[in-house]
Amino acid sequence: MHVHHGNMDARVGFDRVIGHEMSGVVAAVGAGVADVRPGQKVVVRPLDPCGACPACNAGHAHICHKLKFLGLDTDGAMQELWTVPAHTLHVLPDDLRMDHAALIEPVAVACHDVRLSGLQPGEDVVVIGGGPIGVLVAMVARDAGGNVLKSEVNPNRLAIAETLGFDTVNPVEADLQGAVEARTGGKGADVVFEVSGTQPGVDAMTAVAATRARIVMVAIHAQKPSIDLFQFFWRELKLIGARVYEPEDYETAIALIAEGGIDADTMITDISPLSDIQSAFQALDRSPTAMKSLIKVEGDL
Amino acid sequence: MHVHHGNMDARVGFDRVIGHEMSGVVAAVGAGVADVRPGQKVVVRPLDPCGACPACNAGHAHICHKLKFLGLDTDGAMQELWTVPAHTLHVLPDDLRMDHAALIEPVAVACHDVRLSGLQPGEDVVVIGGGPIGVLVAMVARDAGGNVLKSEVNPNRLAIAETLGFDTVNPVEADLQGAVEARTGGKGADVVFEVSGTQPGVDAMTAVAATRARIVMVAIHAQKPSIDLFQFFWRELKLIGARVYEPEDYETAIALIAEGGIDADTMITDISPLSDIQSAFQALDRSPTAMKSLIKVEGDL
Ligand SMILES: [Zn+2]
Ligand SMILES: [Zn+2]
Repeated sequence: MHVHHGNMDARVGFDRVIGHEMSGVVAAVGAGVADVRPGQKVVVRPLDPCGACPACNAGHAHICHKLKFLGLDTDGAMQELWTVPAHTLHVLPDDLRMDHAALIEPVAVACHDVRLSGLQPGEDVVVIGGGPIGVLVAMVARDAGGNVLKSEVNPNRLAIAETLGFDTVNPVEADLQGAVEARTGGKGADVVFEVSGTQPGVDAMTAVAATRARIVMVAIHAQKPSIDLFQFFWRELKLIGARVYEPEDYETAIALIAEGGIDADTMITDISPLSDIQSAFQALDRSPTAMKSLIKVEGDL
Repeated sequence: MHVHHGNMDARVGFDRVIGHEMSGVVAAVGAGVADVRPGQKVVVRPLDPCGACPACNAGHAHICHKLKFLGLDTDGAMQELWTVPAHTLHVLPDDLRMDHAALIEPVAVACHDVRLSGLQPGEDVVVIGGGPIGVLVAMVARDAGGNVLKSEVNPNRLAIAETLGFDTVNPVEADLQGAVEARTGGKGADVVFEVSGTQPGVDAMTAVAATRARIVMVAIHAQKPSIDLFQFFWRELKLIGARVYEPEDYETAIALIAEGGIDADTMITDISPLSDIQSAFQALDRSPTAMKSLIKVEGDL
């Protein structure tokens, strides 16, 4: 949607094939590729790091200083045949549904967020806002044993969260901090995910946090919000930035989807053919209830 | 100085004996106290937690929700005889100088900050501002094997940092971010301590940070500064709040001072008798070069 709205024109240009959340089948492999073979179901982890910068040298290639993101910095998945580096592939179980597998990329984001939080079973979790990513973070956190409360202001998204079995608070109508204190005996949330990208979300993230809570910054804040740093000192809070994923997060996401730990059918609200891509984007933009809209690319195989 | 300036009147009142950075000798012990005996040199870890709140239950008694801080919430060390709970005492080596031992409390703060940072030998460290606490954090970080750069705007404090052997940058006169990049081959600082309590300090802490850097929030920010959250996401930074100390930080501080890992003689810039306490506070307030000013309390033992 960011590309559709033109917000990434400077980075993406006007002749780019976009798309980085996908599942597919290997058509052919290049010389020297031994780990995958034609016919296998795969997903692409769309990160192409430089291998030589300080982040790559420190083992954090997923946040390489010169990272190429496939589908934004190079052509992506919304085409019949897509050529990618072999190191980006994860092979899927043969019986995994390909529509469900298309959710692996965003689920891997959520797995990365939850892994970096250090969430332990039984801990109290608040997920602040966030649409599809917020819902996926909530699902992965619940699967990891967290007692999840979802804070959301959009009534349609609140309804989806409730359908998925989450306790919810609308912080515009109710006292979120009071609700968290009541749920946790005054302790506060052990883990908070800020997925809203808003100043009220940033205010809430420190207000609901327990002593030594971990707050994971999932949202992209283009502005520099005001933060209650005193609470970081006073309660020894931790703020943890989390970006994309590492290979193990893909493996976790694949296993979660294979086991049914993610309600993929509720997440997928539409499937359109590639020929209808323009109207699919427009419909997604207009829909108050859409979560993930898939594009079905039929290749010439 | 906060109490002297009247900034803590509401909490401290007007008949409080203050003082929480101290060393002393045990005069007498209460019934049932077995771990310390009269005549032993001790320091007081001035925290009296409730033992029953969520923080205490989680093992974080030093940030108890109802913490009493001795010398602020109860009477403190600037008197001949001070009665404290036995659990607050740490026994000192017999040969430790009592003036040096008076620095253990602030050194323990620095030890806590450095421990929570997870600093590893050889890592690049930037300490942003902070007077005595900033200098102590820099000393403890250096002792832990960090390559420390001190950022400071006050010329007197810059001179002290240089006397103590630290590389320094005055960020008003030079490009701090460029200096850190040059020192680290473009990587940035692995660990940053924000001790300035200022908006420029908060701006600098994200600007100098390496990917996955740990930023320790040592300063007390009464305002809610604007923070570059995008950098937290983009570089997967961590912000770690740190407050007072835990028992192991006191043990580390005692060992550091006993071994000479802290230049105590440079830190102690004045010693006055208790009878001159008012002028000692006034002199400390006026002095551009003072670091730690001790009060010598001669008891009636
Ligand atoms: Zn790189
Ligand atoms: Zn307590």
